[in-house]
Amino acid sequence: MIERIVLSEINRFKDCYVATKRELPEVLTISKYIDHTLLKADATPEMISKLCSEAREYMFWSVCVNSSYLTLVNTLLENTDVKKTVVVGFPLGQMATDVKAAEAAWAVANGADEIDMVINVGLLKAREYQLVFDDVSKVVESAEGRVVKVIIETCLLSTDEKIAACAISREAGASFVKTSTGFSTGGATEEDVALMKFVVGDFCKVKASGGVKTRDDAINMIIIGADRIGTSSGINIVTGEEEIKGGY
Amino acid sequence: MIERIVLSEINRFKDCYVATKRELPEVLTISKYIDHTLLKADATPEMISKLCSEAREYMFWSVCVNSSYLTLVNTLLENTDVKKTVVVGFPLGQMATDVKAAEAAWAVANGADEIDMVINVGLLKAREYQLVFDDVSKVVESAEGRVVKVIIETCLLSTDEKIAACAISREAGASFVKTSTGFSTGGATEEDVALMKFVVGDFCKVKASGGVKTRDDAINMIIIGADRIGTSSGINIVTGEEEIKGGY
Repeated sequence: MIERIVLSEINRFKDCYVATKRELPEVLTISKYIDHTLLKADATPEMISKLCSEAREYMFWSVCVNSSYLTLVNTLLENTDVKKTVVVGFPLGQMATDVKAAEAAWAVANGADEIDMVINVGLLKAREYQLVFDDVSKVVESAEGRVVKVIIETCLLSTDEKIAACAISREAGASFVKTSTGFSTGGATEEDVALMKFVVGDFCKVKASGGVKTRDDAINMIIIGADRIGTSSGINIVTGEEEIKGGY
Repeated sequence: MIERIVLSEINRFKDCYVATKRELPEVLTISKYIDHTLLKADATPEMISKLCSEAREYMFWSVCVNSSYLTLVNTLLENTDVKKTVVVGFPLGQMATDVKAAEAAWAVANGADEIDMVINVGLLKAREYQLVFDDVSKVVESAEGRVVKVIIETCLLSTDEKIAACAISREAGASFVKTSTGFSTGGATEEDVALMKFVVGDFCKVKASGGVKTRDDAINMIIIGADRIGTSSGINIVTGEEEIKGGY
């Protein structure tokens, strides 16, 4: 069943792909596109506090953190509009499905608003589409209606694999497909964002993450189809400063 | 309490550190030191099958895989002596403690013989020693007597932080301290293995992982204190071929 859908999407792409550009809204509140992100192994509570202060000050959509900092973030963001995004199966996506689902359930029970999960790239490459579908589905189920973004790690995928990953995520009920973890060999490209938007259509949104560092980068991503930007350069993006240093 | 132990270890290191070299056993069965490892995001079932065949053929101690492949590995290694090592909280170590414990429990319930968990580096750097201790303790508890190796990710740590990580792991009941995930900025060094062996003494063993690629590398690690080697170059190590390509 899911195999058939994947094949049909690959054919639809071959037959009628166009990268569609969108017009920007008259008033573009770019801060509301940003998941302000800190996921490094050596992120300290102090660095997480700074992240949350910045998110409050610049009114970013959310902070994106690992689950060990969710409790701290709950406290730091009390009585604000800033959402809490927690990653699941991150960054390899090779955790067992049951464990991913348990991690998502734990995050939701502890206050997460959005879940950014990593797809199982190895199983996708082996065309084990049903297993990949079940993996995403179970996380969506555990998220109990919260936004679930599926990180497909574009830099490791062929075009057909990107299409398959997006079609599977869409069918499994994801809210977003997301380009990158920021921990692999590459980040978001405009080509990938356009392709992903083509496949998911209006059923899901697209999050561009990894390497989006300037206001121009962000605006280009939005025009080509992104509705969310995952970045550690949110301040530079909203203040319009150029910044090319740093990681994710 | 744990703070006091860490401080006392840092002082003991300052006062009386020597890197002790061990004599090799008369018969060195180097294959039995090796955790044959494949942890990449894009590892396919086919690649895992090859890993298991090699482990059987060369009689490695274990295969080390992500939890999504444990079920497959159970089948592939049926009726063999090859152990099954599963990583937990891998590779960032920034999963919430409850989730790490759940992942370890799942792995044990599904046939894992050994658990390689990643320490919370951010909390260690913030000197939140009690939280780091609890994190390791709960995984040890969930492992129900199985071997637990604590990956301290030496490349991100100062000397004092390495000592703290080893002392905490030892006190929390770890079986091994392990140098590296292979997914950060560096791998095992002889200096780190010697330091780790000094701190854990006879209470834990040391696993050297990341960048151990030749027979000479492996033997040097064993002399300086390693009782296990995590590598994807196990075949080169046992057959004595030189090999410097590749990752972990």
